[in-house]
Amino acid sequence: MRNITRGELKNASLLQLKDICEEIREEIFSTVSTCGGHLSSNLGAVELTVALHRVFHFPHDKLIFDVGHQCYPHKLLSGRADRFHTLRQEGGISGFPKRTESEYDCYDTGHAGTAISAALGIAKARDLKEEDFHVIALVGDGSFNNGLVYEALNSIKILNSNILIILNDNGMSISSTVGGTHEILEEMKSGYSPSEDVKLFERYGLSYMGVYNGNDIKELLPVLQKAKQKLKEGSVLLHVVTKKGQGYPFCEAAPEETHGVSPQGKQKAKEYSEALGEELTALAEKNKNIVAVTAAMTDALGLRNFYNKYPERSFDVGICEEHASVLCAALAAEGMKPYYAVYSTFLQRSFDELIHDTCGQCLPVTFCIDRAGITGADGETHQGVFDLSYLSLIPNLTIGVPKNIGEFRAMLRLSADYNKPFAIRYPRCGSEGSITDIEIGKFEILHSTTSDVIVLATGERCISLAEKIRERALREDIDFTLVNARFVKPLDQELLQSRPEQYIITLEDNVLKGGFGESVANFYRNSGKQIYSFGYRDCFIPHGDAEKLSNEYGLNENDIFSCIKDIYARR
Amino acid sequence: MRNITRGELKNASLLQLKDICEEIREEIFSTVSTCGGHLSSNLGAVELTVALHRVFHFPHDKLIFDVGHQCYPHKLLSGRADRFHTLRQEGGISGFPKRTESEYDCYDTGHAGTAISAALGIAKARDLKEEDFHVIALVGDGSFNNGLVYEALNSIKILNSNILIILNDNGMSISSTVGGTHEILEEMKSGYSPSEDVKLFERYGLSYMGVYNGNDIKELLPVLQKAKQKLKEGSVLLHVVTKKGQGYPFCEAAPEETHGVSPQGKQKAKEYSEALGEELTALAEKNKNIVAVTAAMTDALGLRNFYNKYPERSFDVGICEEHASVLCAALAAEGMKPYYAVYSTFLQRSFDELIHDTCGQCLPVTFCIDRAGITGADGETHQGVFDLSYLSLIPNLTIGVPKNIGEFRAMLRLSADYNKPFAIRYPRCGSEGSITDIEIGKFEILHSTTSDVIVLATGERCISLAEKIRERALREDIDFTLVNARFVKPLDQELLQSRPEQYIITLEDNVLKGGFGESVANFYRNSGKQIYSFGYRDCFIPHGDAEKLSNEYGLNENDIFSCIKDIYARR
Repeated sequence: MRNITRGELKNASLLQLKDICEEIREEIFSTVSTCGGHLSSNLGAVELTVALHRVFHFPHDKLIFDVGHQCYPHKLLSGRADRFHTLRQEGGISGFPKRTESEYDCYDTGHAGTAISAALGIAKARDLKEEDFHVIALVGDGSFNNGLVYEALNSIKILNSNILIILNDNGMSISSTVGGTHEILEEMKSGYSPSEDVKLFERYGLSYMGVYNGNDIKELLPVLQKAKQKLKEGSVLLHVVTKKGQGYPFCEAAPEETHGVSPQGKQKAKEYSEALGEELTALAEKNKNIVAVTAAMTDALGLRNFYNKYPERSFDVGICEEHASVLCAALAAEGMKPYYAVYSTFLQRSFDELIHDTCGQCLPVTFCIDRAGITGADGETHQGVFDLSYLSLIPNLTIGVPKNIGEFRAMLRLSADYNKPFAIRYPRCGSEGSITDIEIGKFEILHSTTSDVIVLATGERCISLAEKIRERALREDIDFTLVNARFVKPLDQELLQSRPEQYIITLEDNVLKGGFGESVANFYRNSGKQIYSFGYRDCFIPHGDAEKLSNEYGLNENDIFSCIKDIYARR
Repeated sequence: MRNITRGELKNASLLQLKDICEEIREEIFSTVSTCGGHLSSNLGAVELTVALHRVFHFPHDKLIFDVGHQCYPHKLLSGRADRFHTLRQEGGISGFPKRTESEYDCYDTGHAGTAISAALGIAKARDLKEEDFHVIALVGDGSFNNGLVYEALNSIKILNSNILIILNDNGMSISSTVGGTHEILEEMKSGYSPSEDVKLFERYGLSYMGVYNGNDIKELLPVLQKAKQKLKEGSVLLHVVTKKGQGYPFCEAAPEETHGVSPQGKQKAKEYSEALGEELTALAEKNKNIVAVTAAMTDALGLRNFYNKYPERSFDVGICEEHASVLCAALAAEGMKPYYAVYSTFLQRSFDELIHDTCGQCLPVTFCIDRAGITGADGETHQGVFDLSYLSLIPNLTIGVPKNIGEFRAMLRLSADYNKPFAIRYPRCGSEGSITDIEIGKFEILHSTTSDVIVLATGERCISLAEKIRERALREDIDFTLVNARFVKPLDQELLQSRPEQYIITLEDNVLKGGFGESVANFYRNSGKQIYSFGYRDCFIPHGDAEKLSNEYGLNENDIFSCIKDIYARR
């Protein structure tokens, strides 16, 4: 798409603005169809973004997105339209706001609930430096469940720096928005007792304006002008309603399914989440104590069928990763068997609760950690590459890393009778494989050889890589023993102790610091064995193709192969 | 104090109940005077707890404390009065609720905001198992700022299991409670427009009862009976006002200073927090961009004077560790120089924000991490023994560990011109020492020898220990080079590379997994050097004397000395 200049936008007639909206909408649809990305959320935010760019003066004024699932129209209006076809591709436009990409992106996001805090910080800096610009936080109603939003609201009077919060209310998180706050917002939209609910926001120091149609640019322009005026006196909450998927009937009809879209033609591999749903449903039939908890991601985590079958034992608590964690710990404290399914990077939000609530009390919560390892196209904020490290340091926690979906099923079955905190981390997609008998803390020898080299690989990406390297090695008459390190904690000390190999290579789909390789190296400390660890180096990994990134940032096939060849050459 | 039986409490007259309250109050005062502990918060909760024990049937009914700074009266009423004199001593009564200590403690706490989530989990388990008991969450108004509380409130309608929330409103966190929620509560207490504020809670599915005098047992008994009745129909929020420090005029007058009390006669050592206040105030004079952020701990962190001198650049945002973290990142994004002072274990709450906001954007926030290492008497939830591990795994973060207060000052001065995320972790108390020139990532050689043993120690506890061991060693004609590893990240690679010693010993006041020793061992991987690391083993460390615990859980003077002696003997 062509870049639309600021002048063009300022001078456009209403009709021309509507045309621009259509142009943006088509560009988003066609690009996301090709590249994958967030579709319905962005489609819903087109008019609102065009109106914001008309009324405010970016990048002088600052626009902060919450999560960032609605930032595509903004990118298209800020000089990035001509590059937008590179969306989510290596070196191309990021799917999230990125300071390093454009001065129009003033604060990076990716996880929920940060925008109001960030807006307050930016506004406070403005006031301290006696500068003059507007600060706008654009927040979806799903994020309004998140505790961080509330902490920020509580601070508005303390910080006393004016910001405009736009509550973009489409009734959806990734799943439907749930809970008390959602009901309040629904009431406000239906016109029932709005005055009391308005007070709720005014108590926090916000002038409330709403409810407006966020997909009607004609309605929006004067409203935004008015909000801009009001900002001189204090902070404003502008409540607009938008339709997720607006403009594309099949998106409007299925906003959940079209929230995130895979690139066209890309074959959908088997997902671990499906297996989670199947296994948990089967286990729950036998064990009445099994309950499942999610934070607004029921479908993506594969639990829709479970939720339909056992609604009384299923809890989607909204984008509240911390509360979900404590809730599970308490359910376990009273004898239930909770499963908390969550993405790897979002579990970072309940790091303290993992320590303080679940592991501190050694309660049998099972954490089903999806999207672990490099995930690819979503970039820095979504790469699940820290979990093996931040989980390994927590006492009382067992960490399982299945080699394929079959083994994941086996771990879930094992977990049902396991009486301690248990984290199972797995990527989005994988191969089915068979279900084998497994035991806590026991590795599996996949290929036993008399070679002096042993490769300990953890997780499907690393085991596939090791198998590939082994095939290549065999062609050069090099061989190694290959072990499926299916538990990162506890390690299989017995196996490690008994292995005769002098050269140990570890592979993990995780940063090296604090991870599996370090644990193995510690085990062999001062033994005289040579340990070589492959995993990701100490940096944030941008968006791109997952396999390419993995290869580039530390799990490099050639490097690992060279390492093995060098060992052979040296001996 | 004698144990008061359930029968005695049930049959007591009002006058006798008041006597029991006085007895409890005196016991708390005298025990805390001797053992140290939380004073004013517990004094304020005496009548409320006695009334709860009269009206409810513990441990059949479940009482969950938030944080737990108000649990002493409960401990005294649940068969632990005769052991209460062992409070916070090794093997004695914990200062916080502890499941392993008594069946009357049904959920462990220590950090803020978890009680309502936990109560919901316990109530939901009750309903699923078709059991019949009452679940009560006792929450201070300070915790009501915390995002986790809000996430739990949002869930009440989703979970649909009845709980009683008692909001114990004393107007204080550890510092005074602040922010919008606090103002709402203040309005409710003053009788101004209560109906609208009541609606706020009713929207979330809570029947509101309030405001009652929580220090008047006569008023409380019928109120609690009524709340118990109402619980049959739904969840209830009971709002009571108590006086922090009630019964002891000097506590009532200075609730902040008497919140936490040190044991009588214990000489107060120099605190790092004092130096933080002094240095930051001096730095702020020269650098107008310096701002300070705390989460309800301004005094304990040493920043009261700074806040008084620079009120416009000081932000106490309440018990909102996550928001504080994002706020700092955003202030830094707009060119300010923020300092976020926080206890080590509470920073766990903003682990995700450390990654996602500050380090992901590589913003120059300085984290002043107090109470790092084993802290002692507060037990499991307050030992700051994970930070070196959870910080080391985060890209872009520099980690400084000063050897004494002088070096802490030097690091703070250094940080003022440092343009990246910087974490400085330090214990509560230490020795002053002199201010020396330091450089990012550079160690200091404290004793250079020709011995083949080098000790790399990080932080004041470890360096003191190493010095002590060295004196002992010298007496046996054993010596070693001693290095102050004042940066845990980045390591001083140049120094490590150049050292000739074959035997390397690392000491850290932190768990071993993921910490300093592992980083050093990684550096020397496959070098043939022998590395021995001392730090804490993989478990939760209970309350007790800090030095004794440190010695017992991994920093054992004899073990380290033996390790060195063995090296000498072997060669």
